[in-house]
Amino acid sequence: MQIRILVTGGTFDKEYNELSGTLAFKDTHLPEMLRLGRCRLEVSVRTLMMVDSLDMTDADRAIVVAQCRQARESRIVVTHGTDTMVETARVLGTAIPPETGKTIVLTGAMIPYAFGSSDGLFNLGSALSFVQALAPGVYIAMNGRCFSWDTVRKNRETGVFEAL
Amino acid sequence: MQIRILVTGGTFDKEYNELSGTLAFKDTHLPEMLRLGRCRLEVSVRTLMMVDSLDMTDADRAIVVAQCRQARESRIVVTHGTDTMVETARVLGTAIPPETGKTIVLTGAMIPYAFGSSDGLFNLGSALSFVQALAPGVYIAMNGRCFSWDTVRKNRETGVFEAL
Amino acid sequence: MQIRILVTGGTFDKEYNELSGTLAFKDTHLPEMLRLGRCRLEVSVRTLMMVDSLDMTDADRAIVVAQCRQARESRIVVTHGTDTMVETARVLGTAIPPETGKTIVLTGAMIPYAFGSSDGLFNLGSALSFVQALAPGVYIAMNGRCFSWDTVRKNRETGVFEAL
Amino acid sequence: MQIRILVTGGTFDKEYNELSGTLAFKDTHLPEMLRLGRCRLEVSVRTLMMVDSLDMTDADRAIVVAQCRQARESRIVVTHGTDTMVETARVLGTAIPPETGKTIVLTGAMIPYAFGSSDGLFNLGSALSFVQALAPGVYIAMNGRCFSWDTVRKNRETGVFEAL
Repeated sequence: MQIRILVTGGTFDKEYNELSGTLAFKDTHLPEMLRLGRCRLEVSVRTLMMVDSLDMTDADRAIVVAQCRQARESRIVVTHGTDTMVETARVLGTAIPPETGKTIVLTGAMIPYAFGSSDGLFNLGSALSFVQALAPGVYIAMNGRCFSWDTVRKNRETGVFEAL
Repeated sequence: MQIRILVTGGTFDKEYNELSGTLAFKDTHLPEMLRLGRCRLEVSVRTLMMVDSLDMTDADRAIVVAQCRQARESRIVVTHGTDTMVETARVLGTAIPPETGKTIVLTGAMIPYAFGSSDGLFNLGSALSFVQALAPGVYIAMNGRCFSWDTVRKNRETGVFEAL
Repeated sequence: MQIRILVTGGTFDKEYNELSGTLAFKDTHLPEMLRLGRCRLEVSVRTLMMVDSLDMTDADRAIVVAQCRQARESRIVVTHGTDTMVETARVLGTAIPPETGKTIVLTGAMIPYAFGSSDGLFNLGSALSFVQALAPGVYIAMNGRCFSWDTVRKNRETGVFEAL
Repeated sequence: MQIRILVTGGTFDKEYNELSGTLAFKDTHLPEMLRLGRCRLEVSVRTLMMVDSLDMTDADRAIVVAQCRQARESRIVVTHGTDTMVETARVLGTAIPPETGKTIVLTGAMIPYAFGSSDGLFNLGSALSFVQALAPGVYIAMNGRCFSWDTVRKNRETGVFEAL
């Protein structure tokens, strides 16, 4: 089973810039994470953008939708910042209904992967598993749980994804 | 959804003993791993034994079967050494057929979790996801892939789990 | 030999705040780092402040000077942000001459300790060693090198401490 | 100041072999550790052997002595297993007296560097600092402390290096 991973940035891929002392994007950590997880799936990774999800525009989301539509794989994982993950999931859920046969799982991290204490590897293992096992549809997989795109919100006070 | 995790030891939980300079078991790392993954599932962890899977006896496997049968949760993850994971899966698959309504996923690690380069966190995220999404049955989830108990073997030369 | 560690914050102790998605200070990582290094020295740690060194005021520096003067230990390590470490070293070097018998070593990190890729543990091991071996005076120990306070600058373009 | 690092193996460099499930040596981690510590010293690393220090023979020790004698650098760090580090230090201390002008510091780790919880990086930062600051002689630097070769023993029960 072939799986496509589309990278959009988010906390997942934030790094510490030594010179400026701030968090910034460089390259995606996805290949390194797949190597660490000794992932034996046939996965192709494509970076669409490297943005903080608060900066993601409608045009950016249109790119994600187009890439999911065009992908020849029917199983797609999208890495995404958590702040607007629900919004992008909604756009995808509306644009790509189950009839298309596509299973799309968005995931991310509460802590950058480059930090020792990141939840990223756990979430990636989870998203790659749900995307294989679930019926067509658009989902968010975070911290062990999986929600259909139209039944989830991010609780801004606790930072936790929860059912509506 | 409640999930039970049964711990049996294996590479997952091996630690470095400073005094003897060898690998040994102390406590399970499961609680720490669930914390790192910021796991939001209702999970109860129970340590059944802490053994190298090469040392696992028929009596040990009978304990695992009994614990899976008795568990009131219908979703169960078993952490296990990789060397005889297939054998334990076979015993479980025969003893606990799909009609019992139980979904059981065995998982482990190629590298101890205490090592920085472990695949353990990835595999745990994967196993906890497959166990929620799959129909009743007994499975092995390793390195992103999931196999039914009767269709898998561990390739001793490459160390990789593969379809029969 | 008793050693005092004075904590002022800096990159060393920056953490990722999950809710805001920014870097911030919580508690110092010094005790955890000493534990990881299995440090067998008699060390007492005292947090004076938790600030980005760009925000350090003259009043803050006066506190550091006073604490170094008052300390009954003659060997003192000061953890400090790298951006103004040279400035604080100059204030200390002027205020606490070698005749006082005090050996003071400032150190820090280019990458927060909480990041897997931090140089913090290496620098801490280095600073605690130089402070034991060097004659009274004020020094900066970073990335394996050690400079007297009046012979060092931070190269803003490369981020590297170098001899004047 | 040029420093030579001679690698002999020891816990420092032990790795987990996925296929056999045991600890073994592959390549040294020294270059990676120097990179992580962003070490700015002029260091040349040479691997002499990769052995558990319990397996180190008189012939092996003769190689270490010869390499220290031949080195054109007067500052030398030797990485070494902890079990017989004191013995090798004694051989070096007898063979290479202070009059030769050489400062030699042996160091190692209680936990393999490849483990997340290793003291290796701390010890390396420490040894590279002591070797610059101390007068000619042979020393052992472990866990923040530094001992002359003829005043130290390893306490087998606690695993701690302590003064005679």
